[in-house]
Amino acid sequence: MSPASTKGIVIRRLPPDSDLLDELQAVAQKEGIALGHISGIGALKTARVGIFLPDQARYEVKEFAGELEICHLSGNISLKDGIPFVHAHIVLADREARAWGGHVLPGCRVFVAEVILSSFKGEKKERLPQPDFPGLALWSLEEEP
Amino acid sequence: MSPASTKGIVIRRLPPDSDLLDELQAVAQKEGIALGHISGIGALKTARVGIFLPDQARYEVKEFAGELEICHLSGNISLKDGIPFVHAHIVLADREARAWGGHVLPGCRVFVAEVILSSFKGEKKERLPQPDFPGLALWSLEEEP
Amino acid sequence: MSPASTKGIVIRRLPPDSDLLDELQAVAQKEGIALGHISGIGALKTARVGIFLPDQARYEVKEFAGELEICHLSGNISLKDGIPFVHAHIVLADREARAWGGHVLPGCRVFVAEVILSSFKGEKKERLPQPDFPGLALWSLEEEP
Repeated sequence: MSPASTKGIVIRRLPPDSDLLDELQAVAQKEGIALGHISGIGALKTARVGIFLPDQARYEVKEFAGELEICHLSGNISLKDGIPFVHAHIVLADREARAWGGHVLPGCRVFVAEVILSSFKGEKKERLPQPDFPGLALWSLEEEP
Repeated sequence: MSPASTKGIVIRRLPPDSDLLDELQAVAQKEGIALGHISGIGALKTARVGIFLPDQARYEVKEFAGELEICHLSGNISLKDGIPFVHAHIVLADREARAWGGHVLPGCRVFVAEVILSSFKGEKKERLPQPDFPGLALWSLEEEP
Repeated sequence: MSPASTKGIVIRRLPPDSDLLDELQAVAQKEGIALGHISGIGALKTARVGIFLPDQARYEVKEFAGELEICHLSGNISLKDGIPFVHAHIVLADREARAWGGHVLPGCRVFVAEVILSSFKGEKKERLPQPDFPGLALWSLEEEP
């Protein structure tokens, strides 16, 4: 193992009405987090999430509006095209407390978002197109030693 | 960035039949965690969660009983009225594996709860009432430099 | 508090078609993570989750197939029978973005899984059978000082 280690932690409330993904992306880039972890809670005004359909190499998109708790936002930060890139998934609850979720797409409008971004030191990870996964950009698999 | 860093990590099973939120609050205060992150899994005997209704400045409350997996408990610790304060959200699964979730309210009775609390060094964050968010106490937004 | 601290962080994409739990278990054991935390996102081809039924001392098992986003995978690593043991829960979303979840059982087949395992230094935790919790192996409760 050449393990990574924690470099710094950014704890922040994201601006109301900002786009969740844009804002996470902006924080990661501004803070220079090339490798990291995201965890957050809060609430959204609108949500737009994706479910990946491998046979169509695209995300099925679902949209939500109204009171939406962010039961959990989680994800990672790595490099894509050489710059910090956020990959985040979310679990939401509607007014009946029913949970919904998926891949965070542009279109999640923040009501309140309290996020913790951990920045790691260690070997960078780069997202690249993978022949077996059309439509996605993924990290290389670990080499067997 | 003046990043926070990890000070210590508390890993614990919470007592059966304790109130989840009370117990997290007690651990945070006893361990002096003024700034931190919570992650946990387990199961509850009963659950009580809230969905915030901004136009009514209150939480809609939903209650659950029976076998309830804690698919994920997450949250943060900051200061409110000068003492460590837990803000936690949860995702539960019922006996059909259907997921439900929301803001953790008093009334979540623990069956098993395995929690990891990370304590951070760094600038304290204080929850304060915000004019635009009646019914909530929130961190200040980051100042643009 | 005798807090634990972070020793190292392993960030990895798990092999496609591997069994999620087997693979997490293998990473924890290979990397010698005796005490740790797991967080991940991705997608599964099939899922098999459990909801614990205390009165029957067993998990109710639910199976899923098709496009399944891993909205969140979380868990902990401690010792069982002296070796690193993964306890993980998951939240999934189906093609309609409906969320499901539970305790991760063998039978979750990976499409893409991006996981972050944090390894902690500190007092080891051991899973042991507990008289009041038939069917489970749990950490001891914290002694009141």
